[in-house]
Amino acid sequence: MQFGADIRIVDDAERPQCGDGQVKIEPAFVGICGTDLHEFLGGPNFSPTSPHPVTKEKIPITIGHEFSGTIKELGKGLESSGLKVGQKIAVQPTIYCGQCGACKNGAENACLNGGFVGLSGGGGGISDEVVMPAIACLPLPDNVDLDIGALVEPLAVAWHAVDASPIADIKEPKCIVFGGGPIGLAVVQVLLARGAKMVICVEVAKRRQEFAKDFGAHYVLDPTKQDVVSTALELCGGEEPPDIAFDCAGVPATIEQACKVVKSRGTVVNVAIWEKSIPFNPNWLTFREANLLAVIGYQKKDFQGVIEALRTGKITPAKMITGKIHMDKLVDDGYWALIKEKDKHVKILVDVRAGA
Amino acid sequence: MQFGADIRIVDDAERPQCGDGQVKIEPAFVGICGTDLHEFLGGPNFSPTSPHPVTKEKIPITIGHEFSGTIKELGKGLESSGLKVGQKIAVQPTIYCGQCGACKNGAENACLNGGFVGLSGGGGGISDEVVMPAIACLPLPDNVDLDIGALVEPLAVAWHAVDASPIADIKEPKCIVFGGGPIGLAVVQVLLARGAKMVICVEVAKRRQEFAKDFGAHYVLDPTKQDVVSTALELCGGEEPPDIAFDCAGVPATIEQACKVVKSRGTVVNVAIWEKSIPFNPNWLTFREANLLAVIGYQKKDFQGVIEALRTGKITPAKMITGKIHMDKLVDDGYWALIKEKDKHVKILVDVRAGA
Ligand SMILES: [Zn+2]
Ligand SMILES: [Zn+2]
Ligand SMILES: [Zn+2]
Ligand SMILES: [Zn+2]
Repeated sequence: MQFGADIRIVDDAERPQCGDGQVKIEPAFVGICGTDLHEFLGGPNFSPTSPHPVTKEKIPITIGHEFSGTIKELGKGLESSGLKVGQKIAVQPTIYCGQCGACKNGAENACLNGGFVGLSGGGGGISDEVVMPAIACLPLPDNVDLDIGALVEPLAVAWHAVDASPIADIKEPKCIVFGGGPIGLAVVQVLLARGAKMVICVEVAKRRQEFAKDFGAHYVLDPTKQDVVSTALELCGGEEPPDIAFDCAGVPATIEQACKVVKSRGTVVNVAIWEKSIPFNPNWLTFREANLLAVIGYQKKDFQGVIEALRTGKITPAKMITGKIHMDKLVDDGYWALIKEKDKHVKILVDVRAGA
Repeated sequence: MQFGADIRIVDDAERPQCGDGQVKIEPAFVGICGTDLHEFLGGPNFSPTSPHPVTKEKIPITIGHEFSGTIKELGKGLESSGLKVGQKIAVQPTIYCGQCGACKNGAENACLNGGFVGLSGGGGGISDEVVMPAIACLPLPDNVDLDIGALVEPLAVAWHAVDASPIADIKEPKCIVFGGGPIGLAVVQVLLARGAKMVICVEVAKRRQEFAKDFGAHYVLDPTKQDVVSTALELCGGEEPPDIAFDCAGVPATIEQACKVVKSRGTVVNVAIWEKSIPFNPNWLTFREANLLAVIGYQKKDFQGVIEALRTGKITPAKMITGKIHMDKLVDDGYWALIKEKDKHVKILVDVRAGA
């Protein structure tokens, strides 16, 4: 196949300077995610073709938004920041303007001018060095390795989604997750870490069904073989259906089932990003007074939540790493492997360490 | 025109008995609403064609679900209920099973076996007498007349929708209401009674735009002439768009605009009932982390809220009554007037009092 974005490893990329309040990072592991694949196959979608309002950059940009690394240099004014040279960190790649209504409303993850480092400019994980503001650098505990550190970002997507849901207000919450891809599996793990009493995962692909079980889903339903709505109700005891549904698959059938499967006044959390409009009937929500809550990205609190759950062992996501490759194999063993063998993989990490 | 449901005034309808804990009511005024018109033109939709699980009745049934009346007789066990013979009341027509998950969850308005008196059996307002459980009878204060009492039901729909929204948690809430029909106008009034700082109404029809102004909407937008999303943002000061949007129109354009007009983490309340699926893109919500909350019907607390607001004068809905007719004119001056001169009317009340 010939198509695909023009991805190049360049030797002469300008070395970024470490300004006041900034941190120079040596990236270690970088996860490849669905957004990267979208950019690769059909992009640029997300990547700016005219200067991004915050980064002022446009393509070509450095890629890699899910990454861990080691602190190489600290800019001025970070003496009492708690950050130290040599420290392992996970990077929160959110870019936001700080000026728009969303930012002022404390929802900088929904910034009207927002973006992500590694997608919108501002550097990226797939490089020797990247400079980030100190606030984007989250120290990893001693017992969390750098490869696991690269999983913090996708887990933070899930943490944010679960945190936005009413899970904390429900006694013995029963949840159902549509989709057993990387984000669906992350949601399953976060739900268990956050005290869900029952987690049902709905997934078509055999290998992903196994992953869902491995990560602790109590039940895995195959929607091609089982009626999801009635089976979920039964699994919940026949009277009260699931409290919360997460749509991490983002196809017309999953959002319809998610709306129809929740209890009265239940919540459907849309985690998926959609490509176009779909047939939807608000009555699916109406007759149970349910609500459809949409989430995007994450905030610092979500990174902190995930890192603490990794430290205490409430989340043990190592099995999400289904491949580790070197930078020079990025296209063939990274992008194409994920596209061609989609169900076999959860996360492929690129090891970008010098000498790795 | 020849079509329309078979509506008959029958003289020999069996006189209902007033059992223990029940109240015999002499209906006074009965509002005709959109649901009645749907049943009339295209029904039976809502009315049961096989025995209703709670009322055990099927069509023909007595119609009229928005009504006030006077207590004629009290069944046994109501001595200390506070209800008295001769008292004016508004009737809460909700029918529910008390057994299903929704009922046990305190959402009896979303009962899986639910319905409404006057649509699902159990009597109806357009009759000489109707027997209801005491719990469905809400005394009207001295300063609230019986005709206004018939408006409590549609106002309770609006009260329920506003109460389900996060209005109470927002300082100086700015709201936008799509649709200036009976329910949209009721929502405008309830929002003002509940302390909304700004209420924008979006409506196409000229006469309804005037009604919206009459009922206190601060701004009325014509979506055929103005861009709703940008105009609403401007009216809100240019930075933070409306906090809450209510879709009382229920057409594809209104729900899309409602989703796109709210602020980050804003709420869209769907009040409309839809006939079929529509094109919808969850991304409309995602990029602002908004949520779409669906509501249906009302609960006793909503009737109580409305009646208290009527008592204190926070809601003065008399102008909603655009016609009063007698029972024998129900079809021509009631149903057909509402169908043919839709924009001219808000509520037509049927005066069913003996000798009226
Ligand atoms: Zn990603
Ligand atoms: Zn911003
Ligand atoms: Zn009605
Ligand atoms: Zn019920």
